[in-house]
Amino acid sequence: MENSSLEQLKARVAEITDLAQVASLVGWDQMVMMPQGGAALRANQRATLTKVIFEQFTSPETGRLLDEVAPYEDLLDPESDDAALIRLTRRDYEKAVRVPSELRSDIARASSEGVQAWAQAKEASDFSILLPALERAIELRQKYIDCFDDYDERYDVLLDDFEPQMKTAEVRVVFQRMKDELLSFIRGLGDDGADDSFLTGHFPVDRQQALCHEVIDLFGLKPETWRLDDTRHPFVGGPGTDDVRITTHYDETNLDSFFGSMHEYGHALYENQVARELARGPLGHGCSLGLHESQSRMWENLVGRGRPFWTHFYPRLQETFPEQLGDVDLDRFYRAVNLVRPSLIRIHADEVTYNMHIILRFELEQDMIEGRVALADLPEEWNRRMDEYLGIDVPDDAHGVLQDMHWGAGHIGYFSTYSLGNVMSVQIWERVREEVPDLEEQFERGEFGALREWLGDRLHRLGRKFPPQDTLERVTGSRIDPEPYLRYLSEKHGAHATR
Amino acid sequence: MENSSLEQLKARVAEITDLAQVASLVGWDQMVMMPQGGAALRANQRATLTKVIFEQFTSPETGRLLDEVAPYEDLLDPESDDAALIRLTRRDYEKAVRVPSELRSDIARASSEGVQAWAQAKEASDFSILLPALERAIELRQKYIDCFDDYDERYDVLLDDFEPQMKTAEVRVVFQRMKDELLSFIRGLGDDGADDSFLTGHFPVDRQQALCHEVIDLFGLKPETWRLDDTRHPFVGGPGTDDVRITTHYDETNLDSFFGSMHEYGHALYENQVARELARGPLGHGCSLGLHESQSRMWENLVGRGRPFWTHFYPRLQETFPEQLGDVDLDRFYRAVNLVRPSLIRIHADEVTYNMHIILRFELEQDMIEGRVALADLPEEWNRRMDEYLGIDVPDDAHGVLQDMHWGAGHIGYFSTYSLGNVMSVQIWERVREEVPDLEEQFERGEFGALREWLGDRLHRLGRKFPPQDTLERVTGSRIDPEPYLRYLSEKHGAHATR
Repeated sequence: MENSSLEQLKARVAEITDLAQVASLVGWDQMVMMPQGGAALRANQRATLTKVIFEQFTSPETGRLLDEVAPYEDLLDPESDDAALIRLTRRDYEKAVRVPSELRSDIARASSEGVQAWAQAKEASDFSILLPALERAIELRQKYIDCFDDYDERYDVLLDDFEPQMKTAEVRVVFQRMKDELLSFIRGLGDDGADDSFLTGHFPVDRQQALCHEVIDLFGLKPETWRLDDTRHPFVGGPGTDDVRITTHYDETNLDSFFGSMHEYGHALYENQVARELARGPLGHGCSLGLHESQSRMWENLVGRGRPFWTHFYPRLQETFPEQLGDVDLDRFYRAVNLVRPSLIRIHADEVTYNMHIILRFELEQDMIEGRVALADLPEEWNRRMDEYLGIDVPDDAHGVLQDMHWGAGHIGYFSTYSLGNVMSVQIWERVREEVPDLEEQFERGEFGALREWLGDRLHRLGRKFPPQDTLERVTGSRIDPEPYLRYLSEKHGAHATR
Repeated sequence: MENSSLEQLKARVAEITDLAQVASLVGWDQMVMMPQGGAALRANQRATLTKVIFEQFTSPETGRLLDEVAPYEDLLDPESDDAALIRLTRRDYEKAVRVPSELRSDIARASSEGVQAWAQAKEASDFSILLPALERAIELRQKYIDCFDDYDERYDVLLDDFEPQMKTAEVRVVFQRMKDELLSFIRGLGDDGADDSFLTGHFPVDRQQALCHEVIDLFGLKPETWRLDDTRHPFVGGPGTDDVRITTHYDETNLDSFFGSMHEYGHALYENQVARELARGPLGHGCSLGLHESQSRMWENLVGRGRPFWTHFYPRLQETFPEQLGDVDLDRFYRAVNLVRPSLIRIHADEVTYNMHIILRFELEQDMIEGRVALADLPEEWNRRMDEYLGIDVPDDAHGVLQDMHWGAGHIGYFSTYSLGNVMSVQIWERVREEVPDLEEQFERGEFGALREWLGDRLHRLGRKFPPQDTLERVTGSRIDPEPYLRYLSEKHGAHATR
């Protein structure tokens, strides 16, 4: 059965996807390959590409085709790719056309200026430099929220851009449960005497590079569909599916590049295993930031900080860095890379205390949007909560409220997806371990194909066909639930912390 | 004085330029960075980008704006950037709208299929595999020519796409003069006993890489505006001006990468020194393939195979490859890299006999377009002329008519620009040497700034403001003229060949 309006709609979104893949490639190039002198040209290139994509997507022609396919859509199996494509395109279209293009331009400009202001403020460790840009960002976010009317609370609108159809109230319940548990866990932490000093030292970059390639090869991606490059702030970019661009950052004083590579591998695998027939369309990516993060966290933390993986891989690491690790046995190494210790900076936090950094931001973002905190008081409020949640004294704004770029860029609603990813990663992990009981024995033998294939068959191939929580339920039988994650933390770190 | 239609036209072509720069970047990425698995996605990305650029450029809106600015144009100084922008845009627009989009698609598809057929034919060394694709290519070229009416001979239309406003008749006169001279030169070549065997051997790639970067730094480009990468078939790509992507190919058995890097440097410098105010528009590139090639040939041959350069640089080369060149003195090396010896393959030919490879192709292309040669007879005709022009016996089609991709891709009219570049390079060279009399002494001291700046001020900054021959006349006082080139060859190689 064919429908000519649907064919036209598919052709249209396929071309928009082509351009979006180009935009992603161009963004990757800017961070990884572009000579600095190209920045001014690149700003124009990206702005024009964004404009063209937006104009093509929001043109009345898209709306007309969506109207035309509606009767046909009712006849389709809701599980089919075509039905999903229509559903998602309609949703994206209806969101896109609500926002006037002038507001969009204002947001884009304010975002790029806000990032500049943030960089200067952080450099000077002076929040007042960021304040005007932040005020502008919040003002524009409020105008953006005003474009919508279908929400329970205003913050829902922002969250929806990063985690579609997730409600603030649901996140709040999950985070409140985690907060209660983690606060008492963190307050109970003593000095466990674990030593991780050997993780800082001299790790030659060329050997790190070889090892990062080796671990990605070991975990496995489709051949000739990826590359790994060095960049300052690692990410996975590029067109996606059969062309994923993994990045990491090599610092010769530590092994962060290695854990970072495993993290980015998780993102890359998700993109890599989306069903090929979805690749040239809007369904052809990972489902949401939260589900994407569930995959990166799984490979970084559940696999990559697990004993079975290191049972297999630690000899390779030792022989690569004998000066540094020759005298360190597996048990000491394992404890060191799993040390729980409250700290100042989110991106360096361990897997337990990390979530308190997120909860703090999630609370402050709602306070900003609901007008419960004056923006000028943000540093004070930040520092108070860092003390309350983590027992950490913030020495200055650069190491406090200014540590992350997100707010300067106007990205409010993004942070929570990191912890949602942590939570969902263990829900998925519990399920795969039920279905593949010898998973850990496989890891000890250096075999990761069963996990990779399970994830591909159950989660990755679906792409964006269903909303994130629906997708999670298809994979695990349940919507988001913090209990598996809290059990995991308690089993892994509970005994440890009291040693 | 402002004109709102002109401002709109400029904004329009600026955005089209942004997209064209993106397309160029995407092409570079495909050749240099893309994992092979990305090829299918990439074909769609490029096709859609090409389509969008073409649709935006040929939309009636462009035509309307061009009509509207016409009265204003008459008031402008014809030397001004604005007048040049209108002239060039009108010319490009009028050419573009003459060709039906269906024919364009047919040409694009035939080109990509023709390249495949060529690769198979070359692999099998069997011209008959290419023949159907070549017949199709010529048929489509004829249809393309039929879209135009303003030409003296049909081949003019094809030439114009690569060397705007150049007439076949003028090229024919230049090439006939060169042919007469070169044929007698080549027939007079004896064995000069020069030895270049030491140019083949073992040249470790990492040292070649360092040296290629070093020579580009020595010649000089604007800092942070370029990069150099490895690829199979070298070119200069990327957005241009402040973001040029140089490529070369490293083969550890020879030094071709080094001469190749100097060649590509010449292209890169031209792009790099186009006036900054032209960068975001249609004027912001080198003027034509021929003038571009004049710059690459100048740096490769006139500088890079010259004694003054090697007087400075040969010690660096020797110390980089002592096993290979330690016992070879400057004079032997100089003679080896300037050896004239007829050979089978164009891209490996010396600077003298190279032109006969081009003349042969130029003649055959006209014969094909005018129907004077049956396509099936092309190999025979090729081989006959290789014998007549170079005294070379062609062993098989792979090393004969199938050696270049151009015809399979439908690029008829391209080859001649290589020799036009040779000719123009020496016209420009004579002029710069008159105006900078101590140029060679500067080279001997490793100083290349005076040449670079002269080229920037006199040629490069103009970009595409004026047609190629007009541009050449502004720089040298003359249209294309083979005499300086023939004098140069005779002075450099005349004595040599009879030693």
